Amino acid sequence: MEAQNALETRVREPDMGLLKEEDAAMLTDLYQLTMMACYRRDNKDTTSTFDLFARNLPKNRHYLVAAGLEQAIAYLQKAKFSKEGIEYLRQQNLFDESFLSYLEGWRFKGEVYAVKEGTPVFQNEPIMRITAPACEVQLIESYLLSMINYQTTVASKASRIVESAKGRPVVDFALRRCHGPGAALLEARAAYIAGCAGTSNVAAGKRFGIPIKGTMAHALVMQYDDESEPFRVFADTFKNTKLPLVLLIDTYDTIKGAENAIGIAKELEKEGKRLAGVRLDSGDLTSLSKQVRQIFDSAGLDYLTIFASNDLNEWKIEKMLLDGAPIGAFGVGTEMGVSLDAPALSGVYKLAECTSRDGNLVERMKMSEGKDTLPGRKQVYRIYDANGRMVKDVIALENEQVQGEALLVKVMENGELCGPLPSLQETRTYCLEQVARIPEATRKDDRYLHMKLSDIGYGMQDMDILGERNVPYKVEVSKGLNKLIEELKAKHRR
Amino acid sequence: MEAQNALETRVREPDMGLLKEEDAAMLTDLYQLTMMACYRRDNKDTTSTFDLFARNLPKNRHYLVAAGLEQAIAYLQKAKFSKEGIEYLRQQNLFDESFLSYLEGWRFKGEVYAVKEGTPVFQNEPIMRITAPACEVQLIESYLLSMINYQTTVASKASRIVESAKGRPVVDFALRRCHGPGAALLEARAAYIAGCAGTSNVAAGKRFGIPIKGTMAHALVMQYDDESEPFRVFADTFKNTKLPLVLLIDTYDTIKGAENAIGIAKELEKEGKRLAGVRLDSGDLTSLSKQVRQIFDSAGLDYLTIFASNDLNEWKIEKMLLDGAPIGAFGVGTEMGVSLDAPALSGVYKLAECTSRDGNLVERMKMSEGKDTLPGRKQVYRIYDANGRMVKDVIALENEQVQGEALLVKVMENGELCGPLPSLQETRTYCLEQVARIPEATRKDDRYLHMKLSDIGYGMQDMDILGERNVPYKVEVSKGLNKLIEELKAKHRR
Repeated sequence: MEAQNALETRVREPDMGLLKEEDAAMLTDLYQLTMMACYRRDNKDTTSTFDLFARNLPKNRHYLVAAGLEQAIAYLQKAKFSKEGIEYLRQQNLFDESFLSYLEGWRFKGEVYAVKEGTPVFQNEPIMRITAPACEVQLIESYLLSMINYQTTVASKASRIVESAKGRPVVDFALRRCHGPGAALLEARAAYIAGCAGTSNVAAGKRFGIPIKGTMAHALVMQYDDESEPFRVFADTFKNTKLPLVLLIDTYDTIKGAENAIGIAKELEKEGKRLAGVRLDSGDLTSLSKQVRQIFDSAGLDYLTIFASNDLNEWKIEKMLLDGAPIGAFGVGTEMGVSLDAPALSGVYKLAECTSRDGNLVERMKMSEGKDTLPGRKQVYRIYDANGRMVKDVIALENEQVQGEALLVKVMENGELCGPLPSLQETRTYCLEQVARIPEATRKDDRYLHMKLSDIGYGMQDMDILGERNVPYKVEVSKGLNKLIEELKAKHRR
Repeated sequence: MEAQNALETRVREPDMGLLKEEDAAMLTDLYQLTMMACYRRDNKDTTSTFDLFARNLPKNRHYLVAAGLEQAIAYLQKAKFSKEGIEYLRQQNLFDESFLSYLEGWRFKGEVYAVKEGTPVFQNEPIMRITAPACEVQLIESYLLSMINYQTTVASKASRIVESAKGRPVVDFALRRCHGPGAALLEARAAYIAGCAGTSNVAAGKRFGIPIKGTMAHALVMQYDDESEPFRVFADTFKNTKLPLVLLIDTYDTIKGAENAIGIAKELEKEGKRLAGVRLDSGDLTSLSKQVRQIFDSAGLDYLTIFASNDLNEWKIEKMLLDGAPIGAFGVGTEMGVSLDAPALSGVYKLAECTSRDGNLVERMKMSEGKDTLPGRKQVYRIYDANGRMVKDVIALENEQVQGEALLVKVMENGELCGPLPSLQETRTYCLEQVARIPEATRKDDRYLHMKLSDIGYGMQDMDILGERNVPYKVEVSKGLNKLIEELKAKHRR
C-alpha cells in the first residue's frame, strides 16, 4: 500500500521526446519484426536484395537530389537492440524467447550500393540497393526510408530555390517550421548540400560545420520605444566582430526603417565601419526593395545589400528578380523546411531478389495495381553528351553490359564502410556540379506566355498559354531488364 | 608532415544526425544569440512576456489540437549549453567572453502558462505564454516553435482523420514518410493524442506506451512462390500470441488473395483459432472491400475484419464509408505524418510585454503589414452552452474580468514544473472529450450537393453546389484588449 502511494506520488519526469541512438533499431514498423519472426521460424532468413527508390517525381519536381546517405550508413553501422528494448518487446507477448535472443545479437552485416550523396536521381532509380539476410534487410526499411525520404525531399526543393536566386545567396531559415527539432537538424544539412549558403540553425552549424547566419528579429526592435535605439545597440555590439551588420527595418514602417538605417550607416562610416545591409520581412518585397534601394542610393549608400524573407519560394524569388527587385540575398524558411508544395516523397523499399528453397537467387517483382516494381539486382547507368551534359539514364540488370557511368557504388560490405565518406562541403560542390549537368529543358518548369486579349475588346479575358513545356528526363529500362519483367509476368499468369 | 598525413587518413565516422539532448539549447536561430548579446550589453535583459500562437488556421482546418507541450516543458527544464557548444560559439568570433560566460550558466528560470495538451485552439490564441528575462525567453523561441508547430500540425490533421472513420480504429502507419526518424517519434505521439488507436512505430510504443500494431508487408508474400505459404507461416508463427492474425492479400491479385485467406481461416478454425482479418493496400478499396466481404460472408467468415490502407486521408475515408465500404479499420500514413494538405502551421512567438527603461512593464504589439499581434499579458476564456458545447472564446487581458473557462494554466514557475503532467492516455481522453464539444457546424467541412444536370440534356454538365458552409468558431477580442490596441496604434501614429 505504501509502495503504491509512493509510486503514485512520484512525479513522472517530462520527456523531451528526442530519439536516442540506442532506440534507433526500434524505430521500425512492428510488421518488420513480425515478418522477421516468420523468416526465422521458417528458415527463410536467406539472402535478399531490396531497392530504395522513389516511385515517381513529386509535383513540381523534375529531378530529385539524393540526400541523407551518410545518416543512413551511420544507422546501419550502429543500429542494435538495447536490453531495455528487448525487455519492452518481451512484455508485448508477441515473440518467443528464441526470436528475442536472436534480436539481442542483431547487427547489420550486409552489402550496400548507393548513389553518391548529392546525385540527381529520377523515378524508379535505386538510391540504395541492399543485400543481406532477410531479417537484416527487412528491419532497416522504415528508418532508412524516413531518413532518405526527408533529406531528399528537402534537397530537391532547396535545389530549385537556389537555382531561382541566380547566384544570390539563399540562407536556410526553416528551423521553427520544420517537423520538430530532429527534422530541423537534418533539414539544414540537406539544404546546404543543395547549395544554400548557410543556415540560421546554430546546432546544425556546430554539428555539420555549416556556416551560420543571422542578425536580428522583430523582438529586438519591439523591446525599445524608438527603432533607432536597438539598431544602434546592435551595431555597437557587433561592429568589431565578423558579423555582417544587417538591420531588420519592417517592424513598424519599412520606409521609416530605411531612413533610420541610413542614420546608423552614417554613424558607422564616421568610425570607418560599414553597415552590411537591411532585411525586409513583410509587404510587397519587390516594390519595397526598389523604394529602399532608391533611398539608400540617394544617400550614397550603394554598398548596402537588401535581404528579403517572408514565406519565399522558388516562384516568388524568380518573379521578384524578373520584376527587377534589387535584392541581394534571400532567407527561406517554411517552404523549404517542409517542402510545402510536395512535403512527402513516394520513396519505397522493395524486394528485388531473394533466395528460393533450393538455395538459388530468384528475381522478384510486385504486381499490385499501380504499384509494380522492377525485379532483379540492378545498376543505373548515366549517359552524357560530349559537353558532359546528361542525356539519359538506363536502369539495367547488374550483369548486363551497358555504356555509361554506373551511379550505384558499393559503400558497405559485411556491414563495414568500404572507404571514407566525402565531407559535407565536397558533397555540396559535387551536387551543384551534377545539377548543372541536367539538361536545361528538364530543370525548368513549364513556361507560360501571357496573352493580353482584354485590349482587343469583345469582353475577352487575358490568359496564359503554354509557351514552353518542361521536358522530362529520359529514364529507360534496359533490354535485359525488360525481358526479365516479361518472363516474370508470364510466369505469374500461368 | 606526419601529423597531417595521420589527420588525412583518419576516416571520419559517419554521423547518424540525431539531435542530442546536450545540443538542444544550440538548436536555435543565430539571431536569438545576437539579440541576447545586445540585451546583455545594453542592460535590457529584463522581464518580457512572449505568446506562442498560430496566426491563422491552415487550409482545411477549422480547429487546432494543441500538442507537444510536454516536450516543450521538458526542453525548458533541461536546456543548457555544453562546454563543447560554448567552444563552438567562441570559434565563430561573434561573441565576447563575458557573453559566452553568461551562456555557460544559462538556464530557463521563467514562468510558463499553457493550455492543456489536447485542447482545441484557434487563430491568435496563445498556446503558451512565457514570462522571463529577455535572454531566457528569446533563446527558446525556435525550439519551442518547431516542437509545438509540428505536434499541433499532426494532432490537428489526425483529429479530422479519426473523426472521418466514425469510431473505426485508425492506426498510425506514417513512420517511413515522416520528416526523419526524430519526427516519426513525435508524430506517433501527436496522432495518438488526437485519437488514433495505435501506431506501427515500435520505438514510439516503447517510449510513450502507445499500443503498437502491425502484421505483414508485401515483402513477406514476395519471399515465397505461392501466396498461401507465407500466410500459413505467419499464422503458425503468431496463432498462439495476442497478435491479431491479419493477412495482406493484394500482392498479386486481391480476389485470389481473399480466397487464399479463406483457406488459412478454415485451417485455423480446425484448431479452434481464428483469423482476425485481411488488409487491402491497393486498387479501388470500396469496390474490392465489397467483393471481399461478399466472398468471406459466403464462406461463413463474417467475423473477418477488412483493414484498408494506401494513401488514405479524411476525405477518402469519409467517401468510402458513405459508399458503403465494409471496412473495419484504417491504416493512415503519409497524409497524417506530414499533414499533406497543410504541412506547416503559421505558429509564431511574439513579444507582448516588456520592461521599459524606468522599470515599468509596457505592452508591445507588432504592426508589420499583415503581421500585427495582440499586445499585453493575456488569457483565453472559453464559453460553453448549457449542454457543455463550446460557444465562443474571448481573448482578454489577464486582469480583465471575463466569464468562462480560463484555458491558460500556470505550468512552470521559476523554471520548475508546478505539478505533475497528465499521462499520455489521460491527454488522449481529454482531447477526444474536448473535440466533441466543438460545435458540429465548426468541426465539419463545407458540404456540396451534387446536381445531376446532364440528364436534362442541352449539353449541361453535372455540378457540385455549396449545400452547407462550415461555420468558423467565434474568437473575440475583449473590450479591454481592444482598447489597449487602439491606444498603442494611436501612440505609434504620433
